[in-house]
Amino acid sequence: MTSAIRRRRGEARERRTSIGSQGEGGSGAADGHEAAAILERSRAAVDPELRSAMDSLPASMRRIALYHFGWEHADGTPAAGNAGKAIRPALVLAAAAALGGPASRAAAVRAAAAVELVHNFTLLHDDVMDRDATRRHRPTAWTVFGDADAILAGDALQALALGLLAADPHPASRAAAARLAACVIELCAGQQADTALEKRGPADITLDEVLAMAEAKTGALLGCACAVGALYAGAAEEDVAALDAFGREAGLAFQLIDDVIGIWGDPRHTGKPAGADLAARKKSLPVVAALTSGTPAAVELAALYAAPFEPADLDRTTLAVERAGGRAWAQEQAADRMARAMQELARAIPDPESAGGLLCLAEFVTRRST
Amino acid sequence: MTSAIRRRRGEARERRTSIGSQGEGGSGAADGHEAAAILERSRAAVDPELRSAMDSLPASMRRIALYHFGWEHADGTPAAGNAGKAIRPALVLAAAAALGGPASRAAAVRAAAAVELVHNFTLLHDDVMDRDATRRHRPTAWTVFGDADAILAGDALQALALGLLAADPHPASRAAAARLAACVIELCAGQQADTALEKRGPADITLDEVLAMAEAKTGALLGCACAVGALYAGAAEEDVAALDAFGREAGLAFQLIDDVIGIWGDPRHTGKPAGADLAARKKSLPVVAALTSGTPAAVELAALYAAPFEPADLDRTTLAVERAGGRAWAQEQAADRMARAMQELARAIPDPESAGGLLCLAEFVTRRST
Repeated sequence: MTSAIRRRRGEARERRTSIGSQGEGGSGAADGHEAAAILERSRAAVDPELRSAMDSLPASMRRIALYHFGWEHADGTPAAGNAGKAIRPALVLAAAAALGGPASRAAAVRAAAAVELVHNFTLLHDDVMDRDATRRHRPTAWTVFGDADAILAGDALQALALGLLAADPHPASRAAAARLAACVIELCAGQQADTALEKRGPADITLDEVLAMAEAKTGALLGCACAVGALYAGAAEEDVAALDAFGREAGLAFQLIDDVIGIWGDPRHTGKPAGADLAARKKSLPVVAALTSGTPAAVELAALYAAPFEPADLDRTTLAVERAGGRAWAQEQAADRMARAMQELARAIPDPESAGGLLCLAEFVTRRST
Repeated sequence: MTSAIRRRRGEARERRTSIGSQGEGGSGAADGHEAAAILERSRAAVDPELRSAMDSLPASMRRIALYHFGWEHADGTPAAGNAGKAIRPALVLAAAAALGGPASRAAAVRAAAAVELVHNFTLLHDDVMDRDATRRHRPTAWTVFGDADAILAGDALQALALGLLAADPHPASRAAAARLAACVIELCAGQQADTALEKRGPADITLDEVLAMAEAKTGALLGCACAVGALYAGAAEEDVAALDAFGREAGLAFQLIDDVIGIWGDPRHTGKPAGADLAARKKSLPVVAALTSGTPAAVELAALYAAPFEPADLDRTTLAVERAGGRAWAQEQAADRMARAMQELARAIPDPESAGGLLCLAEFVTRRST
C-alpha cells in the first residue's frame, strides 16, 4: 500500500464517523433500514448517470432499455420505476468510500453505472435464453419487444457500460474496464454452464459444479463491483483482490439465499409465481444439495423431477427438497460464505467503522430470506 | 494538425515508397492481387493477436468462437480456417500505416483484432436473430451449438474486444475503445432497423430508410475501423473524421455490392444458396430500389413478394428486380459512394502514394461483383 493510499484511508476513516450517522457507516450490526438508506443514497447518485447514458442511445434502443429498467411502460409513458435493488452499484460506491473516502466515492459514480449496465445487459440476455416471462413484477423485455430487440438492447447496454469507462478520464478507468470486460466473459461462461446443466439429467450433477456455476454467474459481478470501487480508491493490488473475494463470497451467499427464496419465498415479494423454479425443474443450489444428499427424500425428489411438473405436486416437491436437507444446507452454506466474505473484508479494511457500508450491504442480501 | 503529426506523416510518406513495392502502396489502379496481398499481410499480423485473445476465453466459450472463426470443426479438431475476408482489421492497419507509418501500423494490431472481434460478435448474434443457417460455407454457430451458446459467445467476443483495448497501454486505446463502443450501439440500431424493416410490408419502405439502415449496419464499423487506425497514428480530429466517412461510404458501397451478389452472385463463391435473399423476401437495397421504381416490373415484383416463395418463381423474381432497375441503381449507387469515399480519403491523405493501401481495399470490396 502506498503512503498516498494510506493517507486517503486515514481520511476515509475520519470522515466515516460523520457519514456513519447518515446511515452508511456504523458497526457490523447494521439493520435493514441502514442498508435501504445506503441503496437509496447510491441510487440517487447513480440514476442520473444511468439515465444520461441511456439518453445517448438511439430512440428505438432506448425504449427497450428504459422499459427493462422499469422507467417506462411498454408504450413509452413514464413508469414509477422498479429497477431492482441495484446492489452492485451500491457496492462499487461503498468500496470506493471505504478505501478512499467521499472523493473516491464521487469519482466512482460512472463506474457504478457501468457495473449496473453490465448487470442489466446480462438480465436481458438471460431472460431470452431462459424464456423467463417475468422480471421485477413485469413482463420481461423479450415478451414485449421480441427476442431480437431484447438481444440487441442487451448488446447495446454492454457497449454503453464499457464505453462509459473508456470515456472516463479517471486513472482507474482503464483497469476497471479491463476487469469488467473479463467479468462479462466469466458471467457468460456461468450462464453457459447454467444452460448446459439444465439440459443434463439431475443424477450426474455435482454440488461443486453448481457452486462453480453460481460463482461465475453471480459472485463474479458482485466481486467485480467491489474491486472496481477499490480501483477507484487507488487501492493496492492485494486490497483490490480481497474486495473481489469479499464480493464473490457475498455473491455466492446471495445466490444461495436467492435460490432458497425461489422455492420458499413469498410470490408477493419475489415477483415470481410460487414454485416457479421447481415447476421449471431448475437445478438450483438447494435442489442439487437435496438430490445429492443420499436421503430417502432425495430419491423421492429425483422421481418427481424425472416427471413433468403437475401443480398438485408442488407442495410435495417443496417438502422433498426441505426433508433432503436442501434448505438447511443452502442456509448454512450462505452463512459460511458470509463468514469468508467478512474475513476478506477485514483483510482489506481492518477498521469496522470504514467497512460498515460494505458489511451492511452484504448482510442485507443474505438477510432477505428471514 | 500538430507539428508532431505532420512530422510523422512526412515519415510515413517516405517509408511508403518502399512499402509500396511490397504490395501495400502503389497508385489508385490497384488490382485484386494487391488487395489480396494486403489482406494476407494483415491477417498474418492480426491472427496471432486474435488467437491469443481467444485462448484467454474459458474452454466452453472458446470452442464456439473457434468454430465460428473457422479455426476448429464442431468437434474441436483444427480446421483449415476460413475466417472471412477480414477487411476490417486490414482497414485499421492500412489507416494507421497511411497516417502514421509502419510504427503506427504495428501499434494498431491489437486494435485491429478488437475491431474484428466486434464484427464477429455481431455476426454470431445476427445469425441467431435472422435464423441464417449458413455463414462462410459452414453451418452457423447457433445451428451447431444452439441459440444460447451463440448469444453467449457473441457477448463474450464483445467483452474480449473492448477488454483488449482497455488493456492496451497505447495512448489512443481509450479513444478507440469509446469509438468502438459507440459503433457497437450503432450496429445494434442498424440490425434493429433491419429486423423491423423485414416485418413491414414492402409497399411503405423507402430507399432512404434502407440506406440509413445499411449505413448503421455495415458502414459504421468500416468507418470505425478506419477511424481507429487513424487514432493509433495520432491523427488530427478532422483526419479521423474524414477516415470514418471514407470507411462509411466504402462500407455502403460494399453493402450495395453485397446485396447485388446476394441476388446475382454465384453460390459457389458466396457460400449461400442461389436466390436465398429473394427466397427469404429480404428487402435488400436493390429490391427496395426496384419496388420503389414506379415501373411495371416493380408491380410484378411486389406481387411476387406478397406471395410465399416458390422455387419456380426465382428466375422471374430475379428478372423483375433487374428490369425495375434494382441492379443498375445499386451499381451506380455503389460507384457514387466510392467516389465520395475517395474524396474523403483525399481530404485526409492527399498523397495517393500514402493512401494506396486504403484505396486498394476500398476498390477490392466494390470490385467483387464484376
